[in-house]
Amino acid sequence: MSISVYTPSPELSRDWARMLSGLLPGMTALSHEDVSDPASVLYAVVWSPPTGLIAGYPNLKAVVSLGAGIDHVLADEELPDHLPIIRTVGTDLTQRMKEFVALQVLLHHRRLPDFLAQQRAHVWDKLVTPPAPKRTVGVMGLGNIGAASARGLAGLGFDVRGWARSPRKLEGVTCYAGEAALDDFLNGCEILVCLLPLTEATRGILNATLFDKLAPGAVVVNLGRGPQLNEADLLAALDSGRLSGASLDVFEIEPLPEESPLWDHPKIVVTPHVASYIDAETGSRIVAANIKLFEAEGTVPDIADARRGY
Amino acid sequence: MSISVYTPSPELSRDWARMLSGLLPGMTALSHEDVSDPASVLYAVVWSPPTGLIAGYPNLKAVVSLGAGIDHVLADEELPDHLPIIRTVGTDLTQRMKEFVALQVLLHHRRLPDFLAQQRAHVWDKLVTPPAPKRTVGVMGLGNIGAASARGLAGLGFDVRGWARSPRKLEGVTCYAGEAALDDFLNGCEILVCLLPLTEATRGILNATLFDKLAPGAVVVNLGRGPQLNEADLLAALDSGRLSGASLDVFEIEPLPEESPLWDHPKIVVTPHVASYIDAETGSRIVAANIKLFEAEGTVPDIADARRGY
Repeated sequence: MSISVYTPSPELSRDWARMLSGLLPGMTALSHEDVSDPASVLYAVVWSPPTGLIAGYPNLKAVVSLGAGIDHVLADEELPDHLPIIRTVGTDLTQRMKEFVALQVLLHHRRLPDFLAQQRAHVWDKLVTPPAPKRTVGVMGLGNIGAASARGLAGLGFDVRGWARSPRKLEGVTCYAGEAALDDFLNGCEILVCLLPLTEATRGILNATLFDKLAPGAVVVNLGRGPQLNEADLLAALDSGRLSGASLDVFEIEPLPEESPLWDHPKIVVTPHVASYIDAETGSRIVAANIKLFEAEGTVPDIADARRGY
Repeated sequence: MSISVYTPSPELSRDWARMLSGLLPGMTALSHEDVSDPASVLYAVVWSPPTGLIAGYPNLKAVVSLGAGIDHVLADEELPDHLPIIRTVGTDLTQRMKEFVALQVLLHHRRLPDFLAQQRAHVWDKLVTPPAPKRTVGVMGLGNIGAASARGLAGLGFDVRGWARSPRKLEGVTCYAGEAALDDFLNGCEILVCLLPLTEATRGILNATLFDKLAPGAVVVNLGRGPQLNEADLLAALDSGRLSGASLDVFEIEPLPEESPLWDHPKIVVTPHVASYIDAETGSRIVAANIKLFEAEGTVPDIADARRGY
């Protein structure tokens, strides 16, 4: 029996395959290009697989997403129905996102972009900011990653609220649930962090209507998925002053096209989808454990719900 | 009886004086320029007072420093001996420093300066960084502010160690004490944060000899006092690659002179001494409480030791 690994980098796919082979005695993990017998493949471990790749393995037991999101798997229009999808969520992924959320929120909270502009102009001007307990930060998405990120912000002293589809309870975080509570959640939010999974319900959720419900001069940090943000609405809101800044790590099109106006906007911090990621070294242990468990039990706790989209 | 307030800004001094007058019934607080009878002044509340200002009040009971450090008071060569100096340390000061330490450490940890340079060049390149538990951060100075900052970093997942003159115990932080333990503390440190008070022992402590004991390519964050850093040694260490970056909020001369090479160095983040500060609104409550307590008891917990220098 064998495992096929697909990532957009053949080199990285081979790294993952080598690690997985070492961790799963009795199984052989190969990079997708190196698979000679597709019928032998029982697990496809993938990140952003091309259309039809998964359907090319007729005997799959499950697909393993190399990340917490499964939108990159569901994007494949030839994906066979009812194939279980296993998410990969580990302490590394959660840790890295928690760090990046803290960095982006602190950066806007303490006006780092303004201080960097002053540095370039050799200007010494003490811009005053409130302390974190007087700053309201909202986190959209309270799964493992969102919950850890929200708790991290609370630990730094911020006034943190969170929003999720279903009710949650998190120490130090005021939680709101569902569509009906969204306006209350947004009202007064000064820094909004999006960590939502990409689903039909979250596509385009960060738009002008939502921005107008935030505190005046609010900041938007999108670390979820690019299609959740209406980029034109964001640019208009920044230019009108309705929003005062943004940090974007994900984009409608990735890599962000060289001609995108987002690159040069003075109020936007652009990073190349690096908020969080899984190393082959630590991630392969999580994937191997999930495959072993799936072999034994036929399911795992990190199974995704394809209908729900995450 | 009256209180004189001196800060480098007469407007700010009057703000403080107004707040203090409101909080201390029976006392009158005036900005230094508004004092007509120096003999009536029993408390001088000061930030960076000019030489001789304090000696001009013949009946002072105590000097109140508008901050945790007292170096700006001790710098006055005409300061009367044995005059008690009350430090002002409050939750706001501690909170703001904890935020700023987290921001500066995360910023270097996640290579924000490199990502901002990539953004300017429209380059999409995922620079990989280890997760925080694999990053060793050292905090020099473990008073109220240093301890809170070190614990904040530990809460974000960093491998945190701390160094202080005398032994400390802090949950989640490996503590080192005294000159004899300094080399062990520095050995392997990847990001070094200085929060030390300025004393004869700490003047120039951040120099080439110390940099050579850090991990190769380490980062130095100075949020203590400017004279603790040898700026020429820092520039040489950055240019040779011995250090990979620095954040400086305090300088030998403040405001940082327009012609300083620190402004334009691509590996240095310069901020105008804003890591932490006390608002008149919240700070005046702490100062008023300390003055009331000093009136009643003749001392306060936040009394400084002028011989020690903090």
